[in-house]
Amino acid sequence: MSAVQGLLKGPAQVPFDIMRVAYGVLQVRDLDASLHFYEELLGLRLIAREGDLAYLKGWEERQHHSLVLRRAAEPAVERLGFRVRTDGDLDRLAEWYGERPGSTVRMGDADLHGMHGRTLRVWDHLGTPLEYYVTMEQQPTVLQDYHLHRGAPIMRFDHVNLHSARVEEAIVHWQELGFRCSEYISTDTEPERLTGAWLLRKPTVHDVALTAGRGPRLHHLAMWVAEAGGILRLCDQLGGAHWTHAIERGPGRHGVSNAFFVYLRDPDGHRLELYTSAYYTGDPDHAPLRWSVNDPRCRSFWGTRAPDSWYDESSLLLGPDGRPVPTEEATVDERNQASEVMA
Amino acid sequence: MSAVQGLLKGPAQVPFDIMRVAYGVLQVRDLDASLHFYEELLGLRLIAREGDLAYLKGWEERQHHSLVLRRAAEPAVERLGFRVRTDGDLDRLAEWYGERPGSTVRMGDADLHGMHGRTLRVWDHLGTPLEYYVTMEQQPTVLQDYHLHRGAPIMRFDHVNLHSARVEEAIVHWQELGFRCSEYISTDTEPERLTGAWLLRKPTVHDVALTAGRGPRLHHLAMWVAEAGGILRLCDQLGGAHWTHAIERGPGRHGVSNAFFVYLRDPDGHRLELYTSAYYTGDPDHAPLRWSVNDPRCRSFWGTRAPDSWYDESSLLLGPDGRPVPTEEATVDERNQASEVMA
Amino acid sequence: MSAVQGLLKGPAQVPFDIMRVAYGVLQVRDLDASLHFYEELLGLRLIAREGDLAYLKGWEERQHHSLVLRRAAEPAVERLGFRVRTDGDLDRLAEWYGERPGSTVRMGDADLHGMHGRTLRVWDHLGTPLEYYVTMEQQPTVLQDYHLHRGAPIMRFDHVNLHSARVEEAIVHWQELGFRCSEYISTDTEPERLTGAWLLRKPTVHDVALTAGRGPRLHHLAMWVAEAGGILRLCDQLGGAHWTHAIERGPGRHGVSNAFFVYLRDPDGHRLELYTSAYYTGDPDHAPLRWSVNDPRCRSFWGTRAPDSWYDESSLLLGPDGRPVPTEEATVDERNQASEVMA
Amino acid sequence: MSAVQGLLKGPAQVPFDIMRVAYGVLQVRDLDASLHFYEELLGLRLIAREGDLAYLKGWEERQHHSLVLRRAAEPAVERLGFRVRTDGDLDRLAEWYGERPGSTVRMGDADLHGMHGRTLRVWDHLGTPLEYYVTMEQQPTVLQDYHLHRGAPIMRFDHVNLHSARVEEAIVHWQELGFRCSEYISTDTEPERLTGAWLLRKPTVHDVALTAGRGPRLHHLAMWVAEAGGILRLCDQLGGAHWTHAIERGPGRHGVSNAFFVYLRDPDGHRLELYTSAYYTGDPDHAPLRWSVNDPRCRSFWGTRAPDSWYDESSLLLGPDGRPVPTEEATVDERNQASEVMA
Repeated sequence: MSAVQGLLKGPAQVPFDIMRVAYGVLQVRDLDASLHFYEELLGLRLIAREGDLAYLKGWEERQHHSLVLRRAAEPAVERLGFRVRTDGDLDRLAEWYGERPGSTVRMGDADLHGMHGRTLRVWDHLGTPLEYYVTMEQQPTVLQDYHLHRGAPIMRFDHVNLHSARVEEAIVHWQELGFRCSEYISTDTEPERLTGAWLLRKPTVHDVALTAGRGPRLHHLAMWVAEAGGILRLCDQLGGAHWTHAIERGPGRHGVSNAFFVYLRDPDGHRLELYTSAYYTGDPDHAPLRWSVNDPRCRSFWGTRAPDSWYDESSLLLGPDGRPVPTEEATVDERNQASEVMA
Repeated sequence: MSAVQGLLKGPAQVPFDIMRVAYGVLQVRDLDASLHFYEELLGLRLIAREGDLAYLKGWEERQHHSLVLRRAAEPAVERLGFRVRTDGDLDRLAEWYGERPGSTVRMGDADLHGMHGRTLRVWDHLGTPLEYYVTMEQQPTVLQDYHLHRGAPIMRFDHVNLHSARVEEAIVHWQELGFRCSEYISTDTEPERLTGAWLLRKPTVHDVALTAGRGPRLHHLAMWVAEAGGILRLCDQLGGAHWTHAIERGPGRHGVSNAFFVYLRDPDGHRLELYTSAYYTGDPDHAPLRWSVNDPRCRSFWGTRAPDSWYDESSLLLGPDGRPVPTEEATVDERNQASEVMA
Repeated sequence: MSAVQGLLKGPAQVPFDIMRVAYGVLQVRDLDASLHFYEELLGLRLIAREGDLAYLKGWEERQHHSLVLRRAAEPAVERLGFRVRTDGDLDRLAEWYGERPGSTVRMGDADLHGMHGRTLRVWDHLGTPLEYYVTMEQQPTVLQDYHLHRGAPIMRFDHVNLHSARVEEAIVHWQELGFRCSEYISTDTEPERLTGAWLLRKPTVHDVALTAGRGPRLHHLAMWVAEAGGILRLCDQLGGAHWTHAIERGPGRHGVSNAFFVYLRDPDGHRLELYTSAYYTGDPDHAPLRWSVNDPRCRSFWGTRAPDSWYDESSLLLGPDGRPVPTEEATVDERNQASEVMA
Repeated sequence: MSAVQGLLKGPAQVPFDIMRVAYGVLQVRDLDASLHFYEELLGLRLIAREGDLAYLKGWEERQHHSLVLRRAAEPAVERLGFRVRTDGDLDRLAEWYGERPGSTVRMGDADLHGMHGRTLRVWDHLGTPLEYYVTMEQQPTVLQDYHLHRGAPIMRFDHVNLHSARVEEAIVHWQELGFRCSEYISTDTEPERLTGAWLLRKPTVHDVALTAGRGPRLHHLAMWVAEAGGILRLCDQLGGAHWTHAIERGPGRHGVSNAFFVYLRDPDGHRLELYTSAYYTGDPDHAPLRWSVNDPRCRSFWGTRAPDSWYDESSLLLGPDGRPVPTEEATVDERNQASEVMA
């Protein structure tokens, strides 16, 4: 068994059921400017706005929110929300994290609009600000109100992608939480090293991607759109509205995950991926797919190089003290090896 | 040479240049209701509204209008507008029609908004209300204002389709005006008979289609959209807005013309085709393509039968006296023969 | 609580985990003709052909097969395969069915190519021929071999739709197996009656749909394609190959399930739905969506009426004796009520 | 009137009718390798192959060829073909060029397969190798043989784009041949300078584009595909076939011309644009649209920067002596100004 196979040991048997990633809470400096971007340009549905907080969701979603914006002095990621199956899962998760040094665990009443009962806030030993919850207020779906659709349209929250300085450690950690790996990137060196992995609970390609980079930081939140044509249309709409500068990368196809994607930057620099064209991963014997870090198709099936900003820039995470979690440089730089091959 | 080849003798050499079909003027009973349909639901651009008249155009167009609605007691087609190259063409056209018994010819000042100078009104011997003009006021294109697009979106006026009781006579007549045939339908009988033809001046599949049916009546006006996906999206939008009943036929593919189409009925029953996916016909040796009336792919490349309304119902034309032109039944019924084959 | 709410009581707690519907086995009269249809025209991947059996799968799938064709004297449905999580689930399912009068239960070694170990054959009291299995031989995905794709292309098996004469009883039965309802159709009468329901295990709109009609019969198998454009392209390809007659209904949009669909008939009359554009249903509080049987948008969001064949014709099921299960007429005819509304 | 308005004086009245650009003849080093690219990967139809020559056309086209490949020691552009209306036009064009110093004019029998009668070879004073012809052998269209389509599919030849060191002089020259300008790029400097223009005879955005760059060279030939989805599919196919390196730029949207594009490089480095989504330009008062060279949306409506190769590399043209026409550097570099704005 290679070192990488040892690291990709599969999902642990755990006494709780994390169902899926479900929302992100972002700090933004100008709530009006952010809402212009997310609601007016991208077409997300504004469900509630109260004081410094705005709650948005996609057209298909029935939960109260999948994106929360909070006005603050500096841009940052406040928390990433995961749905668990039962209230008891919260206790078992609290216990599980409590046994892991470096974790901060806070059980308490939900403090976001549209959420009731207890939620579990956790900052794991890697510095990731998490919130586990059981239920959220339901909203009517507007999936078939096609005459009102705007933007792509954006259907639902899909996944988060985290930059990790210690990416192999992070990949092991999330598998211990019960996540399964669908795809990964590794070096062709001896010993082989992991530079990224796509990990899931719901049967899509991923709920959480972990990629090597200065971290811990959030590389992007990702929302799902129904058709590639929707992503093209949104790019045209951004161009028409003179927001071309918000398009950082794409549209294009990733080899990894088969995603048809575009990456946008919001007014605070937070990165949003709109994507479509994934596949079903629900079979328990669905084996991880390997990509060599030196395969140019891995990150760009159509060859266009990502700009440096896409590799270098990410959003800071907020720690339990409300201040940004310190970051460190990753030991692996995926980009350099790929670019040598392409040169 | 077969009888049909004799009828399809090609465009005559004429001393005028009809450039393309350019607009339609429709009588409607409720201007607000019609504008809700054409502007709100379909997304056409309202350029001007004055009294009983409303002027609309597509997103790509630079002319003042391509669809004019006039409030009136009864639905009808007031006129069909064709652009000619020069002012002198109007005189030569007036002379040409003047030599043909049964035509009514009126040269006069333009009476529609956004048009200046002379236009030539003609009711040909078949009863078709025509208007020839030279120039129209220019409007800025909004083709790239993608963030404002609504509906399909509808790009531009493309063609008109006329039901003709004497379709072979009509096909000969329009060729004498300089139109060329791209495709036609004929019987497998002996002698072979024409049941429809697609005739052009601009290098698309057609400016004017002539099909056998109770006539003279207007079967439909057709607007061009950029992509099949736009037509699907519009159908979804009509469904979302509870306007499903406005979709009469499609979406689907015609064998004839290769059009990807949907047929809508406006609040007065006027039929509008939205279509895309034509081809270039500008080469002078581009020969007419024949379809057998018995080929089920001819009208429906994907097999779905058109509803009877699509064959039976059409809009009345207004004569020079402002009253509907009397109609007569066609001697050929394209539908019956096709349905026998499909049974 | 209304009678319908009583019937839609939600998934039962059961001691086994049926993961998803996974394949169908169809009897066909001419294996070469069927393979021309499924492999050449539709582009499914032929994995193995041995004697009277042919095994096919979609482009994304990693399992050995999702469609099996067996040459036989008469067209029929031999079995519908469902994947369970563990081998122990087979025993618990056998016990569960054993307690239900009218069921036939046979545990035995897998007899299809690419399958090993035990499978559980069941004919439930409604007459449905089922096969439960645990694992299947893996095949490489060819999802990204885009240069080889043919047809839509068809990505994966998605669901089955059964005509049931006693549809309310069937809906209750499948919920007792642990299936959850995403959408249903019911009458506007007093008392309200169910005429169809969409039931799921994997978090899509459905694994099994049950609709009122002469039954038990299989209305269709459904395969998932990635984009609406793929379905249009396949229709064009069928037209180009002079197989227009294989297109029975669509393309179009269902209100129910939001599916963008086309229905095809194979050379033996078995119906195949190709569809896309579903939504995520994995949240445990995802409540069933109701459609009135009188809402014309329910079955046809764009208005086109389904042909009678779509309501009347279905495939016979094979009973434990290898002969067709007798059918009875349904007490409800969904179509009549809908057509009154549209008239 | 500004200097630029003086240069864009509109099409001259000329005694000949150039109908459209129709084909290109390219020298390639390895005919098998080139056919693998153009026929196998891109799906162009191979009509004839004789000795060192191969003739290809698009799926919609009825002419014998729109792309001719000739095996030779070095890659180069042998000629660009334009269709004229009548045989007499050839004489009038020969006379017209004969009056212009620096032109080389050769009237002779057609020497390409599928062409008969006379053609006129011209090397204009700018060094462009042209061939004017009247008719070409007809081939059946395979537009509706959808089941055979491969690649995008590529429908028809659309335009050529020439790098010109003296672009303003070239723009004046082509207008003198009767070409009209649809769009142009100019500097914001005083005096304003043209850096590119899109010129047409057929009523699309262009037959010939002239852009500032080391020249005279051919920047690209362009083929039209029917839908943006076709371009995405082709990119996926190239990726699947491990030909990602052939994709130089895109897919994306140009502001200029509204083209949805992708740029490919063939095995000899010749550049091919596949594009769709143009608009109608046939009205005589269709005024040129100006783009500032400093508008980042001009060349990239979605923001992605073109690689340097796209600006720097082009194909050499063959002169009347069969050797490459010497090139000179352009005085304007469109790229630098745009990149300053984007920085």
